[in-house]
Amino acid sequence: MLSKNLLKEIRILHIGKYRRKEQKFIAEGPKIVQEFLDSQYEVDSIYATADWMSANQLAHDNMVQITEKELQAISLLKTPNQVLAIVNYPMTNEIQFENGDLIIALDTIQDPGNLGTIIRIADWFGIRKIVCSVETADAFNPKVVQASMGALTRVQMIYTNLEQWLKSLDKKTTIYGTMLNGENIYESELKHDGVIVIGNEGQGISSEIQQLITSQIKIPAYSDSLMESLNAAVATAIVCAEFRRRKP
Amino acid sequence: MLSKNLLKEIRILHIGKYRRKEQKFIAEGPKIVQEFLDSQYEVDSIYATADWMSANQLAHDNMVQITEKELQAISLLKTPNQVLAIVNYPMTNEIQFENGDLIIALDTIQDPGNLGTIIRIADWFGIRKIVCSVETADAFNPKVVQASMGALTRVQMIYTNLEQWLKSLDKKTTIYGTMLNGENIYESELKHDGVIVIGNEGQGISSEIQQLITSQIKIPAYSDSLMESLNAAVATAIVCAEFRRRKP
Repeated sequence: MLSKNLLKEIRILHIGKYRRKEQKFIAEGPKIVQEFLDSQYEVDSIYATADWMSANQLAHDNMVQITEKELQAISLLKTPNQVLAIVNYPMTNEIQFENGDLIIALDTIQDPGNLGTIIRIADWFGIRKIVCSVETADAFNPKVVQASMGALTRVQMIYTNLEQWLKSLDKKTTIYGTMLNGENIYESELKHDGVIVIGNEGQGISSEIQQLITSQIKIPAYSDSLMESLNAAVATAIVCAEFRRRKP
Repeated sequence: MLSKNLLKEIRILHIGKYRRKEQKFIAEGPKIVQEFLDSQYEVDSIYATADWMSANQLAHDNMVQITEKELQAISLLKTPNQVLAIVNYPMTNEIQFENGDLIIALDTIQDPGNLGTIIRIADWFGIRKIVCSVETADAFNPKVVQASMGALTRVQMIYTNLEQWLKSLDKKTTIYGTMLNGENIYESELKHDGVIVIGNEGQGISSEIQQLITSQIKIPAYSDSLMESLNAAVATAIVCAEFRRRKP
């Protein structure tokens, strides 16, 4: 049974500023909740239907059985799915660039769907850290949590002043960026480590960050009449695939 | 000025079955409408604000000046943008597989956003034909038209019985498909032409179509704990990029 107060406590997490204040976010559905339970994340509380309860027999200090109707009241999904968990934000916001790391840096990705897709791409290619400008969409936005399909549990997300962070890196670190006048990626020398900067959906990489790029690359087009660019997540995928192809 | 009848005639095109009955669809915004005007598509009628009218000085038989408020009533965009065009469906629904063609075949892509992204990817890589199973999302759905950002004017979309079409192809045509037990694409022999089959977001390639695949490929993952697959549009991008890398 959900009290009015509890209902309110959960629902405010739909809103970004309250998530950041409370340092908690929402994950939904048996599969994704299970991935958070199995991960290093700390699951604060679980709200589940009787079905989920009996199927999972979980021991958790803070577990509340609720009705389908109550689940509907706290869920953000069109079709709520048995269980909703409140998860604590990760404790650390420190970034260590270790030798051999390949890191993705997001220079203000705005669309939550794109961000979720990029997190899945990072996971697929074994990239374990994504550094985001503070203006980048919130990785703990429920849309991103669901779109990332659990990849969020395996990829560390760090929000920071991207320009300062890039400036703080060892000078030997290669900073790659996809730019219109870059070198064809398939003819470029790519190291196995470094930072890959992905620019904003509309504006590309900002001028301040452009100046810090040490290796400008581009994905060649095979079309004459081209007026458009590739979607940011698609470009991320093609670039990451090429890095990993070189280091099987 | 929009009559009540005209308003109704336009608004029914928001709905798939009426689009197919009328053989007309909606394109919005100055950039995308211009791309359709410049293309082989036949633009049936244009509804535009005074701003767009005076900026474009276009001669078109069927052009109606409307107010911002009227535009809002017929638009599907959150922020309607000066102009809405009604465009006729393409005349031909025939598919010719010509020597050297690289064609994408969609085995029931359901998400309109994914479909729009795939059309943009095809455009980028100079792939001019996409063959879709009849269950695939409607390419003339306003969401797809807008998401494809004009790429739809350069990529021919054909809806047909995909299984029969694949069976009808010359036996020399290679039919590629991404499958879990496929060969690492980076170690596979790829021809410069053929058909690349992309499966459904949840189910992958259907069992009937799987039997017609003559070259099973897969995108290698670089992660152990992987429970998920790549998004269908992302997989399309990586596969197309690799085909085109081999034939610069």
